[in-house]
Order: sequence, then C-alpha cells, then structure tokens
Amino acid sequence: MNNKNIKILNVDKPLKLDCGKTINNFPLAYETYGSLNKNKDNAILIFHALTGDQYVTGLNPITNKDGWWSFAVGPNKSIDTNKYFIICANVIGGCMGSFGPNHENPETKKVYGTDFPVITINDMVNAQVNLLDFFDIKKLFSVVGGSMGGMQVLQFVSNFPNKTKTAVPIACTSSHSAQNIAFNELGRQAITADHNWLDGNYTYKKTIPDKGLAVARMAAHITYLSKKGLQEKFGRKLQERDDLKFGFDADFQIESYLRYQGSVFVDRFDANSYLYITRAMDYFDLVKQFNGNLSNAFKNTKAKFFVMSFTSDWLYPTQENKDIVIALNAIGADVGFVEIDSDKGHDSFLLNVPDFLNTLKNFLDTSYKE
Amino acid sequence: MNNKNIKILNVDKPLKLDCGKTINNFPLAYETYGSLNKNKDNAILIFHALTGDQYVTGLNPITNKDGWWSFAVGPNKSIDTNKYFIICANVIGGCMGSFGPNHENPETKKVYGTDFPVITINDMVNAQVNLLDFFDIKKLFSVVGGSMGGMQVLQFVSNFPNKTKTAVPIACTSSHSAQNIAFNELGRQAITADHNWLDGNYTYKKTIPDKGLAVARMAAHITYLSKKGLQEKFGRKLQERDDLKFGFDADFQIESYLRYQGSVFVDRFDANSYLYITRAMDYFDLVKQFNGNLSNAFKNTKAKFFVMSFTSDWLYPTQENKDIVIALNAIGADVGFVEIDSDKGHDSFLLNVPDFLNTLKNFLDTSYKE
Repeated sequence: MNNKNIKILNVDKPLKLDCGKTINNFPLAYETYGSLNKNKDNAILIFHALTGDQYVTGLNPITNKDGWWSFAVGPNKSIDTNKYFIICANVIGGCMGSFGPNHENPETKKVYGTDFPVITINDMVNAQVNLLDFFDIKKLFSVVGGSMGGMQVLQFVSNFPNKTKTAVPIACTSSHSAQNIAFNELGRQAITADHNWLDGNYTYKKTIPDKGLAVARMAAHITYLSKKGLQEKFGRKLQERDDLKFGFDADFQIESYLRYQGSVFVDRFDANSYLYITRAMDYFDLVKQFNGNLSNAFKNTKAKFFVMSFTSDWLYPTQENKDIVIALNAIGADVGFVEIDSDKGHDSFLLNVPDFLNTLKNFLDTSYKE
Repeated sequence: MNNKNIKILNVDKPLKLDCGKTINNFPLAYETYGSLNKNKDNAILIFHALTGDQYVTGLNPITNKDGWWSFAVGPNKSIDTNKYFIICANVIGGCMGSFGPNHENPETKKVYGTDFPVITINDMVNAQVNLLDFFDIKKLFSVVGGSMGGMQVLQFVSNFPNKTKTAVPIACTSSHSAQNIAFNELGRQAITADHNWLDGNYTYKKTIPDKGLAVARMAAHITYLSKKGLQEKFGRKLQERDDLKFGFDADFQIESYLRYQGSVFVDRFDANSYLYITRAMDYFDLVKQFNGNLSNAFKNTKAKFFVMSFTSDWLYPTQENKDIVIALNAIGADVGFVEIDSDKGHDSFLLNVPDFLNTLKNFLDTSYKE
C-alpha cells in the first residue's frame, strides 16, 4: 500500500463525519483515465463497489490483474476514455490508499483498526467531492456506479444537486434491505470469529484473519451470482476427479471455485476495511435521510438520471431500482430506466453483458451531445 | 447425549455404506408418537432435515423446546397422532444419539471426529428401514419429510418401492443444486476455519468450534427465509436503540436475530455432524443414480405421491419440486402437486402456514381411507 505510484490527494479541508467525529488532512487515493477537455465538461466520477478500488481499467498495479470495470471503461468502450475524463477514488474506509482502518492514527501512532470512525456512504461522497475542486471541475458530465457505487451516485446527486449533468445508478438500492444487512453481518461475523482477528489489532501480531475473511468473501460471492447462472456454469461438475471421493476436499467445481475466490481475496483486501465498508452499506438509507420521502433527495437537481437493473440480480432486485425511478418520476425528474436480461446475477454490471454495455454507452454518448 | 431416556435401536445387521465401508452394531436413536394399530397399517415414517432430530413434536427432552414439527404433528394436526403411529429417527451422521462422528470408534477407543465415514442420503435411509423390522411393519402408510427429509422420502421409495402406501416429499429436490452446494460449503468452511475445530478433534481439547458453527448456522438461516419475509419481519428496525450507534454491535434487529440463532444452535448441535450431514445433502443426486432418468427411480413403486413446494422458497424452488412431478408423470405414477403461497421461504414447512398444514392433512386423511 506504500507504493509511491499511488496518486494521493491530501484533503486538507476538515470533514465532519455522520458519526460526529471530524477528520483532517486525510489521504484520498485516486486514479484517472483519459483527458480533461478545455471546457472541463467531460469528467465522469466513477464510484466503486464494496471490494473495488480506484483502478477501474487497465492493469491494477497492486493486484497485477485487470481493473474491476475493464469491460465497461476504456477506449471506445461504454465509458469511453477517448472521450471522457474518468476519475475514481478509493472510498474512505478502504484499503487501497485512502484513509482507512489500516492507517496510523497520528495521535496514538498506532494503526487505527477498530478505532477508526465508522463511516457512511454520505461520508464517502463528501470526501470524494474534493476531487472536483482539485481538478477545478465545476460540473461533472456524469456520476456512475454499480452496487455500493450506485448508492454513492444517489447520495452524490442528493448532496450536490448542481455538480453533475447526468447520474447513472446501476443495480443498487436507496435503502439497504434486511436480507442484504443479514449477508453483510454474516461476513462481519465470519471475520470477527477468526482467532487471528484479535479485536481488529492483527497488524501488531503480523497476522491476518485470512480464514474468516475468506469465508466472508465466499458468502458474498454466492450472493453476486444467480441460482440459474451457478447451475449453468457449475451444476454438479466434479473438480478434476471421476467420482465423489467421500471426504471433505473440494469434490465439486463450485467448492473449488469458492475456495479460490476466498483465498485470492485475502491477498488484496483488508479485513477491517471489509467490516467498515459493509457497515457503511448497511447504514445507507436515503429514504430515511429524507424522512420517508425519497423524492425529496432529488428535488433540487436538474440532473438526467438513467437507472439500470438486471433480471437475475436477487441482491439488488429490479424492484428496488424501480423504487428510485418512481421517486424521480414523482417529481417529474428526467429519468430513464432499463432492466437488462442477464443470468449473471448482481455481478452482471462487472461482466461482459453486451446489452448492458451498449445501453450504458448509448445513454452516455447521447447525453453528452445534448 | 447420554440421556438414558433416548430410545435406541441397535442395528445388528451390517450396513454397507456408499463410501465402501461397512458399519456394524450401530445405534439408531428414534422416537414414536401415537399407537400402531392392529393391522400395523397406520405407521408414518418422518424424515428430519439438516438440523432436525427424532423429537418431532411435544417437548424435546434435549433442548427443552417444542419439537421441530410441532405445528404439523400432534393430536388432530396435519399428521394426526390420534390416528397414525409416527416414527422418526435421528439420521446416521447426526448428533442426537444415532451413530455419528461424536461416537467412539470401538477399534481405537477414540471419538471418530473426521474419521467417521462420509455418509449419504441413501445410507441414512438404509439405516432407518431397520425400524420397520423392529416394529414388524410390512408397509408404512406414508413417508413424509421436508428439505433433506424430502430427499430421504424420494430415496426411500426408490430403494423400497413396496414399503409405503404414500410418499410426501416437501420443499426438496432430486439433485442438490450448485447454489445449495455453495451455501453448504460456506458453512463447512466457516466451521473448519474455526481455530477450535482442530481438524475435527475438538472433543479431546474439551472445546468446540462454536464461533465457526454459529457462522455456518447464520448463513443457513438466511437461506431459509425469503427476502420479502425478512423485509416484512425485520426491515431496518433497530435493536433496542433509538438511532444507529456507529459501531459494530447489533444495531439492527436482523443482526441481533442472526447472532441469537447462531448462539443457541451451538448448544444443541455438533460441528462435525454439520459437516457430515451437509456433505450427504450435497452428494444427493437421484437423477445421476438412475443415469439421468429420474423416472426410473420410481418405476417399481405403486406408491401415491404428493409433492409440495412454497412460492418464496428460493433454496428448493418450485421448479425443482416440479421436476420430481414431471418424472413421476412420465411413468404414469399417482402423483399430486401443490405450490403453497407463502412469504416465509424454505422455512414455510416448519411454520404455521395454514394452507400447507390443511393440504397435508387432507392428503393424508383422504389417502388413509382409500
């Protein structure tokens, strides 16, 4: 994480968090793609999801793998880096350079761990808006994000109604559901159950709660895929064996796949960050922020919205996305909506789903000309 | 578990398991309700699900709580103990008295732990058929079970086509799906990740992998409920507080509920049994047993089937239950099917769902007269 190539904006404006604490002089790690034009009206702020980071496309220098949205972002792609200037920041609470629980507390000279303040989606967005000042951008062309990124899109437009021309929340919700809180709590319990978690102070013992974090990742990963997609991809296929072995090794490919997903995740993600970011998601309730009337979150914006959902996404199902559309329609906002047919579940927004990628491109490119 | 009030049948007939090993002189813990009539034609064998046991109704003497199917079984209830003689056995691999991984290996004088043979649904059923000889029952009136109990119903009729008049598989499948294997694997990973699991030898250290087992239970519990049911029951209600606390305690009722479900489970269930029974479920593939033609599993039986599913059950969805009906229809078997409307998810079969309870009662009582 101390890679000197990470771009860091040091935010020197105090930020009052929802928890009541104020943070000062904190780092915000970010990346950019494409070029800001002369009028500074071609910038898109992309918000990442739970386990994402600022490395949207191209090679992620930390993981040496493709960026998390390589299918959607790049030259001539849906979010065209030949045309737009893309900015993406690691959320605060994260572990890719932005201010998070793996940072040192300047007052105690100790790593924060669970002394780090609990942050919210609102805090994340209020931290990232500083990037607009830094790049001297008065108004973004768009804010785009899926899953937790979509929640940030909604919160951003609500907080800064005049700072974007368009807004694209994808596969998200305006209020985190009980089932989603339940799955996040499951992940947190798996981490804190790990003997090596040590109340969040694992850094001092030079260990990591890797087993618990892997279990949390496996749980989440199942929720990102659809039942049908899993059945078609894995079914009951066996893993490099002709028959069942009558033991507890991975007999089935799906078992092996999950174990792999868990094991690679612990190399790139911090367990305490997982606790903080899932907590932020669970706390997200834009409906409650506006006393039960979601429309009021958007009443001061002229932004053009485009809401997208996926048929097989059971984590953030179409109905929860439609609730956003309904709230926007209720105030006569400019909003488009499309439900993309896909068997790939919630993960659809990260994958090669041509209908999705084409639709997103068309919306952005058409809106840019207007 | 050494409660002398537990009824035990010592099975002295050798049982060859699917894994190739043979077990001898093993205990089968069972319970009965109601009375066997003179003709011995009023017996119903009930099969329990993953975490169930032989205590179907009334007070469970181990947990001091109601039996797991108290809504359905009792005087004048769906499965009427005034009319029928109910038998239910703890599955082998279980932890309520039947031969399982917490038993001592007579050869080594050590608790089996993971030296216990991997068992299958087929093995469970082949163990339980000994109860018919014990009670001198030639033919059962019915075999009934939900979830893993339903899988045992299917396997029983397939193995012993002439030993039951009717068969009621509820909320189950003929072939465990990739998503269900995934959730079971998640539970197993949570248990084996626990520092106290000790490769299954926790008994010697007088400890239990309680944290891992609790996480496994939480994961499973989420899958037993529907998204809508969770939202209606819990939504974003807070747990004994007026507002969010900005910490990692259980702010939401759903968090508190899951933690409670996890904590009470570890007092009554053995972690190794959880590994073995989930493995048996994952291995269940009656379709493959009959080389891809499920109909052949039932071609030798004259039993009357009644298949039941629930609208909001996403673990064993209606389509998987219908696949059983289709296979039965293909050979002209006597089969009824009903999908019960319920928001309570997979758990519907265990809960007070009047449409389900009434339908089950009508099927049994009508068929009994025939």
